[in-house]
Amino acid sequence: MSRFFSEKFSALEPYVPGEQPQGRKYVKLNTNESPYPPSPIAQRLARQQAGDLQLYSDPDLRELRAAGAQAFGIDKDEIVFTNGSDEILNFAFSAFCDDNTPAVFADITYGFYKVFAEINRVPSMVIPLREDFSLNPDDYIGVHGTVFIANPNAPTGIALPIADIERIIAGNPDNIVVIDEAYVDFGGESAVSLINKYQNLLVTQTFSKSRSLAGGRLGMGIACKELIADINTLRFSTNPYNVNRMTAAAGVGALADAKYFADCVGKVKAMRERTAAALKELGFEMTDSSSNFLFAKHNAISGLELYTRLKEAGILIRHFETPRLRDYNRITVGSPEEMDIFIREVKKILAEL
Amino acid sequence: MSRFFSEKFSALEPYVPGEQPQGRKYVKLNTNESPYPPSPIAQRLARQQAGDLQLYSDPDLRELRAAGAQAFGIDKDEIVFTNGSDEILNFAFSAFCDDNTPAVFADITYGFYKVFAEINRVPSMVIPLREDFSLNPDDYIGVHGTVFIANPNAPTGIALPIADIERIIAGNPDNIVVIDEAYVDFGGESAVSLINKYQNLLVTQTFSKSRSLAGGRLGMGIACKELIADINTLRFSTNPYNVNRMTAAAGVGALADAKYFADCVGKVKAMRERTAAALKELGFEMTDSSSNFLFAKHNAISGLELYTRLKEAGILIRHFETPRLRDYNRITVGSPEEMDIFIREVKKILAEL
Repeated sequence: MSRFFSEKFSALEPYVPGEQPQGRKYVKLNTNESPYPPSPIAQRLARQQAGDLQLYSDPDLRELRAAGAQAFGIDKDEIVFTNGSDEILNFAFSAFCDDNTPAVFADITYGFYKVFAEINRVPSMVIPLREDFSLNPDDYIGVHGTVFIANPNAPTGIALPIADIERIIAGNPDNIVVIDEAYVDFGGESAVSLINKYQNLLVTQTFSKSRSLAGGRLGMGIACKELIADINTLRFSTNPYNVNRMTAAAGVGALADAKYFADCVGKVKAMRERTAAALKELGFEMTDSSSNFLFAKHNAISGLELYTRLKEAGILIRHFETPRLRDYNRITVGSPEEMDIFIREVKKILAEL
Repeated sequence: MSRFFSEKFSALEPYVPGEQPQGRKYVKLNTNESPYPPSPIAQRLARQQAGDLQLYSDPDLRELRAAGAQAFGIDKDEIVFTNGSDEILNFAFSAFCDDNTPAVFADITYGFYKVFAEINRVPSMVIPLREDFSLNPDDYIGVHGTVFIANPNAPTGIALPIADIERIIAGNPDNIVVIDEAYVDFGGESAVSLINKYQNLLVTQTFSKSRSLAGGRLGMGIACKELIADINTLRFSTNPYNVNRMTAAAGVGALADAKYFADCVGKVKAMRERTAAALKELGFEMTDSSSNFLFAKHNAISGLELYTRLKEAGILIRHFETPRLRDYNRITVGSPEEMDIFIREVKKILAEL
């Protein structure tokens, strides 16, 4: 830290993303990427923009918003697009939290929430999940803060039924409830259908997982027009051209190709079930995942040791060395070939114990 | 504004970018875009990424930083890349300004500085330019704030000699001086060569103008390692994957193609001189532009009227209806064909007065 860095950030601990090794070729099951490339339509539309990059992207992203409105059956003023969903989440922490309105989230959830609260210098109210990693909706009723819930949750993959989500939204009429649906397409129930019923609901989604655009960086917020206008006030006060031309075009293509999207999601879900069954047979315990990853532990080997041995064998999974998580690992559901290699290697490691 | 929007932003006025009309086809001379497409190498490398977008971009942007380090003759830890240069500027306001350290900038300069100060809720100290729009370096010595200077300045195009820039940097040893070099390639002297001499210097540049990547969104900061580390602390606390795969690749290509870059810059500079001569002949007064735009006024017609008449004729230029700027218009230097159309139409408008 330089001597010029503002003291307001003296305690800031940046988010640590999953490893992105550039040298050795790993079987990469650590950052919940899709094993499938983007829709061919998305690829084609993105490529078409490369020759026009001397021109700014449309700050109003009209074409992309029209595509989103059609895909989700909403109005084009009820959606905003961002440079990945981290940007819409950061905007939400900035717009809807302050000294009098803490950010409220679970002790085990997307690790960036804590960082977003710190960088926006707003207080956090952290609510522990139950012993089994399930979330008790009653803990979130009338908390007088801005509620952030990842549904399905990460890194557990556990989904909260939409009735519970609605109870939390209805139970906080004077505060915003943000439902972070990064993984919803793999088995959760979306709250998008509730945005016209509740003026205090902001749903965020990402194109990084189910739409195979992690490297394109595209996220979105869906809410009533007034909340979207608030987010746009921040967007136009930080980076009005936040989504580049190629990514905006890829997003249009990804939203247009509903069949490809459904195929990819279906394959990942099938592979998740197959992998879960294989791990169960090997003695693993798992949470009930509605996402594109599994969260698994084994009584015969610590989380860290399994992670380390797999890395030595050329397979990356995600390990969190914190008290409640250290027994587990988060394993992205990859392609059939990748999961065969993974299961084979796990068997070998267990056999060598 | 919704009733949930934090009161801390009640006075926030977002930046208003230049018009980006989607319907009628205009001769667009209003947002300082390049009239030339990106380097063919940049285009090719960007297209190659479209099929791999399911994978996150490298959060450390190793390849891009290596290309930047080579192009500028600096270390790879002395450069950071962002989603356009607005993002690096916003990071600088956040990292290096606070209640005790105001942001210091000219009354006439890039309009976003005022907004960045507001969104980061830091005080501003605004220093008027001289009557002729020149900046007096003495005004910036020992100001006890973080200094932001666009060099060349916008919308005037006037460049400050590097000796004056160095005097300002040396005159603020306990504060950061940010030199925003968005337009430097068109005639200014860069301060990059000073980053190892002064620990308090941050230079920002953009790929939007001289490198024809406005729609790709790529900016950068160049400084000593300690300041770059500070910026990265914020980057990893907001959006670690802030630069997407396609844009990172385009950036590598743009930096590699030095000849194309020099050709484009040369053509724009030549066209700037030709256009300036033509406008002078028509009775316009202009500042001495070192950028890719002209800042011009005419005694026979108000800035607003000229802007309006040109728009009716299908030509967009940028007008700022503020006391010190309203006599003028900012005119982007376009292609020879565009500037011929522009000059022809201006002649017609003046003849009809």
